Amino acid sequence: MKIKAKSIIVGIFVAMLAQQSFAQQPAVIEDFKPSPLNQPQQEYPMVNSQGYARFKIIAPAADSVRVSLGLGGKGGTKLEKASDGSWMGTTEGPMDEGFHYYNIKIDGGKFNDPGALNYYGSVRWESGIEIPAHDQDFYALKNVAHGHVQQVLFPSPSNNTSLRAFVYTPPGYEKGKDKYPVLYLQHGWGEDETAWMNQGHANLIMDNLIAEGKIKPFIIVNTYGMTNEVKFGRMKDFKIEPFQTVLVNELIPYVDAHFRTIAKQTHRAMAGLSMGGMETKTITLNNPEVFSHYALLSGGTYAPTDIKDKSKVKLIFLSCGSKERPEGVIKAVEALKEASFNAVSYVSDKTGHEFQTWRRSLHELAPLLFK
Amino acid sequence: MKIKAKSIIVGIFVAMLAQQSFAQQPAVIEDFKPSPLNQPQQEYPMVNSQGYARFKIIAPAADSVRVSLGLGGKGGTKLEKASDGSWMGTTEGPMDEGFHYYNIKIDGGKFNDPGALNYYGSVRWESGIEIPAHDQDFYALKNVAHGHVQQVLFPSPSNNTSLRAFVYTPPGYEKGKDKYPVLYLQHGWGEDETAWMNQGHANLIMDNLIAEGKIKPFIIVNTYGMTNEVKFGRMKDFKIEPFQTVLVNELIPYVDAHFRTIAKQTHRAMAGLSMGGMETKTITLNNPEVFSHYALLSGGTYAPTDIKDKSKVKLIFLSCGSKERPEGVIKAVEALKEASFNAVSYVSDKTGHEFQTWRRSLHELAPLLFK
Repeated sequence: MKIKAKSIIVGIFVAMLAQQSFAQQPAVIEDFKPSPLNQPQQEYPMVNSQGYARFKIIAPAADSVRVSLGLGGKGGTKLEKASDGSWMGTTEGPMDEGFHYYNIKIDGGKFNDPGALNYYGSVRWESGIEIPAHDQDFYALKNVAHGHVQQVLFPSPSNNTSLRAFVYTPPGYEKGKDKYPVLYLQHGWGEDETAWMNQGHANLIMDNLIAEGKIKPFIIVNTYGMTNEVKFGRMKDFKIEPFQTVLVNELIPYVDAHFRTIAKQTHRAMAGLSMGGMETKTITLNNPEVFSHYALLSGGTYAPTDIKDKSKVKLIFLSCGSKERPEGVIKAVEALKEASFNAVSYVSDKTGHEFQTWRRSLHELAPLLFK
Repeated sequence: MKIKAKSIIVGIFVAMLAQQSFAQQPAVIEDFKPSPLNQPQQEYPMVNSQGYARFKIIAPAADSVRVSLGLGGKGGTKLEKASDGSWMGTTEGPMDEGFHYYNIKIDGGKFNDPGALNYYGSVRWESGIEIPAHDQDFYALKNVAHGHVQQVLFPSPSNNTSLRAFVYTPPGYEKGKDKYPVLYLQHGWGEDETAWMNQGHANLIMDNLIAEGKIKPFIIVNTYGMTNEVKFGRMKDFKIEPFQTVLVNELIPYVDAHFRTIAKQTHRAMAGLSMGGMETKTITLNNPEVFSHYALLSGGTYAPTDIKDKSKVKLIFLSCGSKERPEGVIKAVEALKEASFNAVSYVSDKTGHEFQTWRRSLHELAPLLFK
């Protein structure tokens, strides 16, 4: 199975480069507030209304403290020792809106910021910071009915153990009798099954869309895409079969047996971000009888010739951030439309290969599913 | 409302002192393996068959690296710089079996070990290490049917927001029609609603007991006991009312409305560890019409005179570790029995004020509930 990894990897580096160019920055406005993702009672890291981030690390005897964010072409933000023995610093320019992973280099070692919550990315639990976005309302915790996020441990004979998945069930599921369609939604390289609910706020995005009457409720399932097993930059070496077996032969039957699903191809979607998009493309093409709705979020494209039986595909959704390579996504959707597919593109404005792009992509995708 | 905090706090310090005495240690056996709680692909920290822990931290330019575990009266384990620029060290003696929180002091700052998973304790996400216990089988992940752990966001008018709880539903709940009793199970000071499922393995303890036919299935609910708001050592200042309102007036009605519970006093239990035991004692005594089964795990005792209407109390369970003050628990249960209460004591062998005591306590408590 050949996976076209190059375009995705190029996309990642383009996004990284975009983050590095801080030409002609505006004066810093001193309205810094704690990042919404801080640990309880922690003041730092802070963010201001322009998107600057300010860090404070206590390590009085350290020689050097550096934050991986706010690159400025200098390998991150160098903190300076303050009079109280702490280390402080502000990014050289504003960050993109939304969620960013980061870590702290202290005397040559990589650690997390004790002030911030941790999120699994880059094959480790990293610190997370949130630059409040102008459109943060769609994933805010609101006074609406909330669905539940269920941790399930499903048997995986191919791994000879139980594996973990998270299952979002919409508000009212727990006492109702309705059956629901299911979206299988995958994380990216170095992440795991916690990503979409933790940093992605997929549950809140769904709660809010349902409360506004904008979508028909459906179930979302996240599991681990076994992507840690491949080194970053060597994604071509990734073999899809072990994960495909887990997803198609083990998890889907478990979900259909334990949840009130509409257990049919027409009511089953698969989507994934970045490397999870690569997985989605391969698995949907390998299993046309299993999924009918396909979505790749910063995770490549489909060509009309990829698909053998057009009648089985109800939707193809392709998205990315405007700081990635949107023209690839747009052109691919144009070609799919010309070939009479129901295809939709979405480009997230002023974001790169990061979770704000994918939160928005889910928000755009959800109303299109299972119509 | 007066809460007897002193005995608990004394218990904590007795446990800490016990950990510090490493007289006449055996020779270290070189059979170290990665701790079961390491992050993916991480070799360190390691543990050996005797309970020693070995740490390795990369920070080539640091002046001093110290681990908070393995005290030996010297403020933790001091790591030494190895030839490859890393810092390494082994605890001076064996640790108690089970789970321990820890952190790393690097050049005067407190950080987490990048090799270990994080667990919420001490009002921060701390590193966790597991010394494999001789009785670890009862909380092992086995090839049995697994219940689900549901994250719910329930409305809390008294806090003007939604709060989080975790709800364990037993295997088969999701497709059945039975109604279940409920145990409300609280964490300790500095912890939160994640503690019982993450470091406590409450879900696996239940799965295994159910698979062995040793208990009748019930639901477990964990929520945040609002214990961060009080400083360690100032627990007497804690006011129960805000949490009592959340639990009794907000969470219980939500759980009874959204899950198939037996919504009666006779089928509702409350238990808590350490400061969660203090909360349990106060709330059960304040609300005799709500709970019928009470359990304090390293969290104080009841006297017969505490209880106004004996007929309403179906079980009192008191436990602690043998390295705490077991005589207090044993004497309290004797007095309760003399006063004709159904009271049970349990002392966890060779453990202190730590999660191994509480895992074992839950394992002992569960078969006694809702008989």
